[in-house]
Amino acid sequence: MTGAGVWVNGVAQAHIAVADRAVQYGDGLFETIRVQQGRAVHLPRHLARLRAGCRRLGILAVPWDTLQREIADLVAQHDAAVLKVIVSRGSGARGYRAEPGQPATRILSLSSLPQRPAGVIDTGVRVMICNTRLAHQPALAGIKHLNRLEQIVARAEWDDPGISEGLMLDCDGRVVEGTMSNVFLVRGKGLLTPDLSQCGVAGVMRSVILDCAAQQGMPCEIRALTLDDVRTADEVFVCNSLIGIWPVTLIDGIGKFDIGETVRALPGLCALAGNSEQSNWYSS
Amino acid sequence: MTGAGVWVNGVAQAHIAVADRAVQYGDGLFETIRVQQGRAVHLPRHLARLRAGCRRLGILAVPWDTLQREIADLVAQHDAAVLKVIVSRGSGARGYRAEPGQPATRILSLSSLPQRPAGVIDTGVRVMICNTRLAHQPALAGIKHLNRLEQIVARAEWDDPGISEGLMLDCDGRVVEGTMSNVFLVRGKGLLTPDLSQCGVAGVMRSVILDCAAQQGMPCEIRALTLDDVRTADEVFVCNSLIGIWPVTLIDGIGKFDIGETVRALPGLCALAGNSEQSNWYSS
Repeated sequence: MTGAGVWVNGVAQAHIAVADRAVQYGDGLFETIRVQQGRAVHLPRHLARLRAGCRRLGILAVPWDTLQREIADLVAQHDAAVLKVIVSRGSGARGYRAEPGQPATRILSLSSLPQRPAGVIDTGVRVMICNTRLAHQPALAGIKHLNRLEQIVARAEWDDPGISEGLMLDCDGRVVEGTMSNVFLVRGKGLLTPDLSQCGVAGVMRSVILDCAAQQGMPCEIRALTLDDVRTADEVFVCNSLIGIWPVTLIDGIGKFDIGETVRALPGLCALAGNSEQSNWYSS
Repeated sequence: MTGAGVWVNGVAQAHIAVADRAVQYGDGLFETIRVQQGRAVHLPRHLARLRAGCRRLGILAVPWDTLQREIADLVAQHDAAVLKVIVSRGSGARGYRAEPGQPATRILSLSSLPQRPAGVIDTGVRVMICNTRLAHQPALAGIKHLNRLEQIVARAEWDDPGISEGLMLDCDGRVVEGTMSNVFLVRGKGLLTPDLSQCGVAGVMRSVILDCAAQQGMPCEIRALTLDDVRTADEVFVCNSLIGIWPVTLIDGIGKFDIGETVRALPGLCALAGNSEQSNWYSS
């Protein structure tokens, strides 16, 4: 299992059965993982979230040891890439009812790292506020499942390459996340990030940052956040496993933000906290 | 294109590309259509809903004439079957952003009609109330998209074959639909059915019944419905394109219902109203 491509249940093939419940219903979960120097970065965190998602959806027949071995084999030869892991409930009969114990399907796709502008730490990125709202669905909140139409509809709201991300609000107008990232505010010496118990994906980079902050004694509050909280923040950044951290310098209709000490210091702090594989977060 | 099986973009094959956005994100729509005597029953209504869904999601590169011809060819040899039509946004690069004009993928799957107990018109069915709630998402309400985890989680709530359907409430406790059906109440000489502007799928059989009722001068109200409305109804039924109408005689925790004149008369009324192909709704 070397080279870029797609593997389904350990076999190199770029297709899956139409009867697979990923195709029929989006009945599964995924992880998008950065590959660096032959390693899947933060793999234990990604696998922990994937397992939590599978438990939540009752996808129980997943050969975790096999999956982990396949990932390790696949990424070993790669210096810089993106690994996407999909786990679906597998193929079954027509209808929403799942057969208990139906073998899960595992799909590994390896692709190139997306080209990103260099020097984002100095320039920051421009962000817009999407009109598409996130629905409150506690049964699915937090996990990274395959039902992603809300994000697709939101991402279709802009085509301007100068806009790097869109912030999404929930049905009550609270700020939840970006279409492909989590969001943090810096206020004074502390961090604020939205509560995700009603909607949103609890990102792996978000969890790394929260752990860093805790280890560094940096105050960090997880709560409902309004656009006023954003407006009055000292710094704003978005994050995910591929981009690391992007400082936000402009939010359309909200205002401009400086790139301050906290955002500049975070990668180093996280490295000190034992996440050294992320020390070049800004390079992509 | 004859015989049971699967066709992807006109080619008999039971698999699709992993890169297809149906697999990656549930980025598409579907229809489940009853095939009877070589015809796709209520095809114009199914295609109209599919087109409306594609428009809503911005899936614009669908060769509608080709799809319609493929459906007609496929069902011509079949006396009784189920045709599932999936239209996805097609394959694209990684990420939520869709390439404009990316060719859609069309998937036709033909399978046997599910075995249903005979005589449901006389016995009715037993229904439960699901704990899983439907989220309010007006951007996706009404259309039959491929993001169906809410229905899957709800359908996993029961395994008792004596329970034929689960009713789903929204986050405000209003009755919206069944996991695989729409719901109607009979009160006096009129019908009541839930408003679907915030969540739910606007079923083809629901639209047939609404049109029948209008043509017959039967009062029909579409509005938010509570469990108290259900409790005090004279009759209750659920419907979809495969089952037609199922009278509900027991809702766990709510009460028992009679099978009255209105439910018994509806298929005949709809036949009079020009939907004669549905005159044996109860036979499956």
